[in-house]
Amino acid sequence: MNTETKDALRQIVGEANFSDHIIDLVSYSSDASEHIHRPQAAAWATSAEQVQAIVQLANDQGFPVTVRGAGTGLAGLAVPARGGLVLDLSRMDQILDLNIGDRVAVVQPGVIYADLEKALAPHGYVFPPDPASGKACTLGGNVGTNAGGVKGAKYGTTRDYVLGLTVVLGDGRLMQTGNRAMKSVSGFDLTRLFVGSEGVLGIVTEIILKISPKPSATATTLAIFDNLEDAGRAVSGVMASGVIPSVLEILGRETLQAINQNTDLALPEVDAMLLAETDAYTQGEADFQMERVVGQFKANNALEVKQAESAAQAAELWKARKSCYAVLARLRPNFVLEDITVPMSRLAPMLKGISQIAARHRVQVATFGHAGDGNLHPQFLWDAADEDETRRVEEASAELFQLAVDLGGTLTGEHGIGLSKAPYMHLEHDPVAQDLMRSIKRACDPNNILNPGKMALDG
Amino acid sequence: MNTETKDALRQIVGEANFSDHIIDLVSYSSDASEHIHRPQAAAWATSAEQVQAIVQLANDQGFPVTVRGAGTGLAGLAVPARGGLVLDLSRMDQILDLNIGDRVAVVQPGVIYADLEKALAPHGYVFPPDPASGKACTLGGNVGTNAGGVKGAKYGTTRDYVLGLTVVLGDGRLMQTGNRAMKSVSGFDLTRLFVGSEGVLGIVTEIILKISPKPSATATTLAIFDNLEDAGRAVSGVMASGVIPSVLEILGRETLQAINQNTDLALPEVDAMLLAETDAYTQGEADFQMERVVGQFKANNALEVKQAESAAQAAELWKARKSCYAVLARLRPNFVLEDITVPMSRLAPMLKGISQIAARHRVQVATFGHAGDGNLHPQFLWDAADEDETRRVEEASAELFQLAVDLGGTLTGEHGIGLSKAPYMHLEHDPVAQDLMRSIKRACDPNNILNPGKMALDG
Repeated sequence: MNTETKDALRQIVGEANFSDHIIDLVSYSSDASEHIHRPQAAAWATSAEQVQAIVQLANDQGFPVTVRGAGTGLAGLAVPARGGLVLDLSRMDQILDLNIGDRVAVVQPGVIYADLEKALAPHGYVFPPDPASGKACTLGGNVGTNAGGVKGAKYGTTRDYVLGLTVVLGDGRLMQTGNRAMKSVSGFDLTRLFVGSEGVLGIVTEIILKISPKPSATATTLAIFDNLEDAGRAVSGVMASGVIPSVLEILGRETLQAINQNTDLALPEVDAMLLAETDAYTQGEADFQMERVVGQFKANNALEVKQAESAAQAAELWKARKSCYAVLARLRPNFVLEDITVPMSRLAPMLKGISQIAARHRVQVATFGHAGDGNLHPQFLWDAADEDETRRVEEASAELFQLAVDLGGTLTGEHGIGLSKAPYMHLEHDPVAQDLMRSIKRACDPNNILNPGKMALDG
Repeated sequence: MNTETKDALRQIVGEANFSDHIIDLVSYSSDASEHIHRPQAAAWATSAEQVQAIVQLANDQGFPVTVRGAGTGLAGLAVPARGGLVLDLSRMDQILDLNIGDRVAVVQPGVIYADLEKALAPHGYVFPPDPASGKACTLGGNVGTNAGGVKGAKYGTTRDYVLGLTVVLGDGRLMQTGNRAMKSVSGFDLTRLFVGSEGVLGIVTEIILKISPKPSATATTLAIFDNLEDAGRAVSGVMASGVIPSVLEILGRETLQAINQNTDLALPEVDAMLLAETDAYTQGEADFQMERVVGQFKANNALEVKQAESAAQAAELWKARKSCYAVLARLRPNFVLEDITVPMSRLAPMLKGISQIAARHRVQVATFGHAGDGNLHPQFLWDAADEDETRRVEEASAELFQLAVDLGGTLTGEHGIGLSKAPYMHLEHDPVAQDLMRSIKRACDPNNILNPGKMALDG
């Protein structure tokens, strides 16, 4: 990127919103994944017009543009694999409209999830996806990754709540998709084509979201199982029991052991722990649903079932689950949080397979995740300074992905493909589907300006 | 279509699954819309391989293929606008797999909605979209139109329940999208690109559906309002009240009058009647939600509020709503059921606008619809033998669509674009979005074989 190009960028966004200082470029070299690629410049856009001017300039000058929100992504989506410009939208952070009676929030992409949550709370409403990084991540990032969270089984993911978008396409054209109506079947569903498209088709500059009321009553229960088959059957049993719990989390043996080694929670070191929450407007309804859940836990040989009698007890039951990520991240110099999803009936085979793969490759892995929608997060722990261990982790990962696909599942439930899973796209998608994705990429971004190198779109 | 082509089709599907008899061709000239175009041949495919062979033949020989389920569509989606072959998939009617614990049903496209409903009922599960034509329509048709129904506000539409598809693209290639997992963000969301694509991109030969448990308790209430603003505010008020009713229907004055003239229901002839249902697992929860709804009805000057005390009373309250379509369809020689959607707060302006437009063009229109998601079905009633009246209905329709878009809404909430709304696509979609749709069409169907003439894709 030459001086003229940088000057042109400065002119578009203003001196205060441009940087090529090494300190900024290093910051923008990575997100929450293990990938590192340094950009040549960074810009903070504050309007759709600026985004459009930047993308047009990028097409003229041939430099890549990688859009970024809070950089909380776990698969390298915001890492500028081919250098060029990182375009940070975190300063486009206005909530433009809230209309509770219309169930609509209109936001700029840089609004932080928690800030929308705060704005909706007085009305008793939420934007349900509730990603784990909600305190930091941006809504633009949620749209780019189709973010999910702990309540996916009952409430779905970001995709289910995006009504419309304003997008600058890769060729610089500005486009609207969708509208403020709850329901529309007018033309192709371009809105959902862009949700989860990882910034490779267009840059979203405005988002129309559907919001939902927040249930006021919950019930919480924890159960432990001394073998995986029982826990797996309990999950399928719950799903077939006629209710959908708002939360159904699983923690595997290695995760429980790691928590015990690093906290004073003194958890039972069993094959699996399940944490369930039901929600409703009345306590009677939440309890009725929980009875069904507990019935399945007991019918499938739970060693112990603890039901919370109070909010304080519920918080106690949540402690182990909430500690997982932080505890596991500290154990070894490097870690990567995987993100496969399988049908719920295949959770036990998947969990067993993970242990077998880890043993075969002599790598450390600890698993937790969202059992209610089959989304597991096996966390590989290793030391990247050890080349042999690194290679073994890579080999184990590839087998893990293959197993998830073989069991009817997917490479990624909520983190996205980005750089991390790009080499594995062919395991899940047939050549025709990948070819169609590439055609769509070309239709939106003929010069491959936007976030090149991601999602196996350019080889 | 020459004799050789017909023979080739006979060879693919077998003699019993091919017809060029005039009686069949006339049947396949129309669906539940007012459009009529006669095909040159009809075939019933019984496998994906046959579908693929037909599409390949169509590309070789250059004849159009229009896929058809039960022909219950209201916008001409299954009408062969350019002739050629109607490909009826109603004989691909197998439920291939039901796995309740995985929340998955795998079906062929010709399965009738009600047949899946029947198969799921013993387990207490449903495929929630619940279209009004459920007794006859096929699941392939539901996917093609992204079908919705009376419970959209709470349960969404078909799109929210399709996990994966097997598709024969317009160029004859076979492709898989999605998988059996509840949650996936792997590559572009091709699954939802095909949901609602009206058979113009590919032909769906297998569908993986997400199923949901069926709540067992309901509460039902009817309210009447003597002005539209109050009714409109009541709907927005309900939506902002912190609960989402499973049903919130509206019947306008002209609809109530028509029902009175044709039944002995003796309804009050007011500006608007609202019918609400809440659902849950416990009666306490359904009643709690209904209290909120009733609170909003009363706060917004309902003239009268009737709560059902029993299932029989609830059925009584539903009578008026259930009679709408049949009563209105009988009033005049011709009718068309429109399908605009607006944000809930714009229901009153939309309803007023409909009356004003009808008065200005001296046409008869009666409105009912799904107020809970802003989806109105204004039904135009006229005599097509009267050219002047027909022209006035067309002019009034165009104004109706423009008004819906101006109010932040859409041309079609659940019936699709097809032939009916193709001339109006530009009212809602900017040229860039329409251009992107055309690019996607070309990527899937370069020779414009599939259902040509629909959705304004080819001019």
